[in-house]
Amino acid sequence: VDERLKASQIGERALVRYISKFVNKIDNLRTIGIGDDCAAVPVDDDYLLITTDMITAKTHIPTGMTPYQTGWHIVAINLSDIAAKGGKPIGIVVSLGLKSNTELKFVKALAQGMQKCASTYGTSIIGGDTKQSSDLTLSGTAIGLVPKSEIMLRRGAQPGDTVAVTSEIGTAALGYYALKHRLNLKRCIKKFLQPLPRVYEGRALAQTRCVTSAIDISDGLAASIHQIGMESKVGFQIDFASIPKPFELEYIKKIKKSATNVRDIVLYFGGDYELLVTIKKNRFRKCYHLLKHMGVSLTAIGSVTKHKRFIAFENNTEFDIENKGYEHFKH
Amino acid sequence: VDERLKASQIGERALVRYISKFVNKIDNLRTIGIGDDCAAVPVDDDYLLITTDMITAKTHIPTGMTPYQTGWHIVAINLSDIAAKGGKPIGIVVSLGLKSNTELKFVKALAQGMQKCASTYGTSIIGGDTKQSSDLTLSGTAIGLVPKSEIMLRRGAQPGDTVAVTSEIGTAALGYYALKHRLNLKRCIKKFLQPLPRVYEGRALAQTRCVTSAIDISDGLAASIHQIGMESKVGFQIDFASIPKPFELEYIKKIKKSATNVRDIVLYFGGDYELLVTIKKNRFRKCYHLLKHMGVSLTAIGSVTKHKRFIAFENNTEFDIENKGYEHFKH
Repeated sequence: VDERLKASQIGERALVRYISKFVNKIDNLRTIGIGDDCAAVPVDDDYLLITTDMITAKTHIPTGMTPYQTGWHIVAINLSDIAAKGGKPIGIVVSLGLKSNTELKFVKALAQGMQKCASTYGTSIIGGDTKQSSDLTLSGTAIGLVPKSEIMLRRGAQPGDTVAVTSEIGTAALGYYALKHRLNLKRCIKKFLQPLPRVYEGRALAQTRCVTSAIDISDGLAASIHQIGMESKVGFQIDFASIPKPFELEYIKKIKKSATNVRDIVLYFGGDYELLVTIKKNRFRKCYHLLKHMGVSLTAIGSVTKHKRFIAFENNTEFDIENKGYEHFKH
Repeated sequence: VDERLKASQIGERALVRYISKFVNKIDNLRTIGIGDDCAAVPVDDDYLLITTDMITAKTHIPTGMTPYQTGWHIVAINLSDIAAKGGKPIGIVVSLGLKSNTELKFVKALAQGMQKCASTYGTSIIGGDTKQSSDLTLSGTAIGLVPKSEIMLRRGAQPGDTVAVTSEIGTAALGYYALKHRLNLKRCIKKFLQPLPRVYEGRALAQTRCVTSAIDISDGLAASIHQIGMESKVGFQIDFASIPKPFELEYIKKIKKSATNVRDIVLYFGGDYELLVTIKKNRFRKCYHLLKHMGVSLTAIGSVTKHKRFIAFENNTEFDIENKGYEHFKH
């Protein structure tokens, strides 16, 4: 790798892989580390889950996001990584980089949003730090526990497994475009600004031990499919029509001059923080009913294939699911 | 509190207290949280220690600090909080906010510094995140474990206890002034830029169960004394002459026009990341020999008093130890 390359030229995911070359060979510790978004350290019969996510004014805090929602957001996206592993969160710490002229009123709303999100998912803000910064920066770390026998990883998907997603996909993307083009799609905008991590659903799915792999859909369905495929060394075949989509999707026609389309919104945007899971085929119904009981839909959208291709079908036409999605430094 | 006040008007510590009003009443969870710099969550017979610290280009990365040292620094200051609790670190995650034109060479040196510090103290970088930011921002979270019976807290100091510090105090401050005024005090500059957290020493002291309270001296000896005093509801009486100081201290006379003096350097600056502990009086010798065996001095500098005053003596003259020190937003 040419060391004179800039972060913006290689993108966030390649940058994380580059950094991981210079940090510990953690396999020695039986720790599951960088590459799975969430580290898992063995502690007795459990894995201790540790995940960290940063958001900055420059990249992640769109106009229209209130300080309360910003606080909610930093906690939600960290809890989402715990959810994807099937873990129970036990605490969150948040560091705040604040401009020196930040008013206490703003800080209070941030803290209230953080607190509300944590308590909604049965956990607490247990610490933090504040520092002066040129721009608002929030860095959160969530800690969770999951029994070793129940952890869900990105590797483990087997050919023949059913591919499924929670709730619906594309809602947050629609919310983004609605905000940008001033469409009154309140439900979508709220999902974009204040996502609901699938903490209880992830935990419930893990307890069934029927899930062979899992990931939260933060950077888009396509990117998540590719990540599971890469880690599990399998391919995916997706029925595009069966992907549950927001009913407001017809409104994108109203967005004049927008180059976006349904595929971009459903596959390549992200921000929904729903779960993508692969499940042993004959156990899908069990998982479906379990989540239905919790008030959340689980929809089969395709199957895992031995052949390492990532394909979707729509009206009997096949197209490739590209390995692209929301990625920082590349916008 | 007037909510229109700015972060810069109230300072970092008051800001953290303000935020803590809006987050969980974590005592319900038997979790020791905000206020002790390090959260402690009960897990079986241990406390899981979680601490987070952020550094930003604006406040913490002085001219002269290499990217390697910056990476070392973010890991060292987080490990120092684990050390003060007597914990064994089990992993560190670091989020990097990077300018988009950051070269990979810089990122590599950051990662190598992070890795070297972690491995020096027997632990690993187990995860992280990168985001685009206007200015370099590093946020680290260290995780550790300590048996419940051995944890060292800020509360617990008793009148009559001996007050002691590891190694020497003021070296990092001298390093800061040496950098600023181009004095060739290499040892001090290195301590300022690349501090050594007392991880092994903290763990060894905790195992003796003779330590009644402990803190790492990050923001200055005076601030640390006041924090222990406040949390333990006691006072301190310090023999200023007995505080171990760097032999290079005589060089501050060479700093023309500098308003600084020995007291400022030893009491009110910080950055040494040494440990301040209170120890049952008749157990001090035991702790002294234990650390001597590890190659580190432990020096008695005074005693804990029932009367809640913070006093130092120098040449038979008494003076107040003020509750001030390095504090962000206030510079």
